[in-house]
Amino acid sequence: MREFILKASKAFTTPFNLNDLYGSGRMDLVCRCISNAFFVSGAIRKDVCFHAVLEGPKDPPKLISFFGNELKNISPDERNIGAWIKKALEIGVGLKKGEERRVSDGIIVAKKSFEELVREKARTNQIIYLHPEGKDIREFSFKENFCFVLGDHKGFPKKTEKLLERIGAEKVSVGKIVYLASHVIVICHNELDRRL
Amino acid sequence: MREFILKASKAFTTPFNLNDLYGSGRMDLVCRCISNAFFVSGAIRKDVCFHAVLEGPKDPPKLISFFGNELKNISPDERNIGAWIKKALEIGVGLKKGEERRVSDGIIVAKKSFEELVREKARTNQIIYLHPEGKDIREFSFKENFCFVLGDHKGFPKKTEKLLERIGAEKVSVGKIVYLASHVIVICHNELDRRL
Repeated sequence: MREFILKASKAFTTPFNLNDLYGSGRMDLVCRCISNAFFVSGAIRKDVCFHAVLEGPKDPPKLISFFGNELKNISPDERNIGAWIKKALEIGVGLKKGEERRVSDGIIVAKKSFEELVREKARTNQIIYLHPEGKDIREFSFKENFCFVLGDHKGFPKKTEKLLERIGAEKVSVGKIVYLASHVIVICHNELDRRL
Repeated sequence: MREFILKASKAFTTPFNLNDLYGSGRMDLVCRCISNAFFVSGAIRKDVCFHAVLEGPKDPPKLISFFGNELKNISPDERNIGAWIKKALEIGVGLKKGEERRVSDGIIVAKKSFEELVREKARTNQIIYLHPEGKDIREFSFKENFCFVLGDHKGFPKKTEKLLERIGAEKVSVGKIVYLASHVIVICHNELDRRL
């Protein structure tokens, strides 16, 4: 299983305008990450799970989780994925802390913070924090269960970096350039695919 | 200079609906390729040139070229890039064979086919044809001037494969999986970035 967690610090947490994904707290970025996590030519990666934690206005946080083994009727364009996120936020109106609801096959919305989710995953997974100064991914030893943690265009605040340090997250680099989060996902997949 | 040519066999060649990039001959795919070719975190790659050859209805072919050293006011979301393509097609109405027009800083529209463009580039460039059965990109020797050639979701027809063979295009692979064209671009960039 390849698991990803994206902290989308500005992404709207109530229904937004599909004609303005960029202006909805960079929802375009969230959509591209999900697209790149799941799609290969003509198929969906069944062994992927993607968690988008949205932290923008007006009802943060909202966690939307996508499971590749169940996903249906999803296509790789930003607008289609944006429509699924919007539906999740519609269904998620009024969720109380810790609650979750089913959105569609392979999509769940929950009221859970990035910090809670990362702590939960750290119990059973190697947490991998993508960072230009980390260990080169081409030489990195993945454990059986691992989970990639990604920031958005704002990166991680100090508080989050400290949390990741505390739970023993390992820094991994895909190159000296700072890439978009969606590109980092492609490079991680490629490295893992080559090892199969 | 990193140069890419995308053959978008179904992409519309007259102005289309920005709310339906997917339905406009998979214009979403074209937009993602352009986004991935140019964007890194907080900047545009100046050393990239991207040629999208659109071959769908109603006035094929249309070549739209983007030059990173001049591009302005472009953002990485599909809709923004789609809007630039739409503008190029509006400006390109009535172009005759071989003619070209300026769309904006770093964007030019022309009436030129994929075959013409590839032949032209082959005179001064190593043409690299991305293919799962090619030589591993991690061991590939790039010449000083090279140009990547990519197909869309339909791949290349036999006729195009024969043309690429005739002009001595070299097959390169980024992995055993068939990736989306937009993902292949990210992987190519990453390999080239690592060699700098």
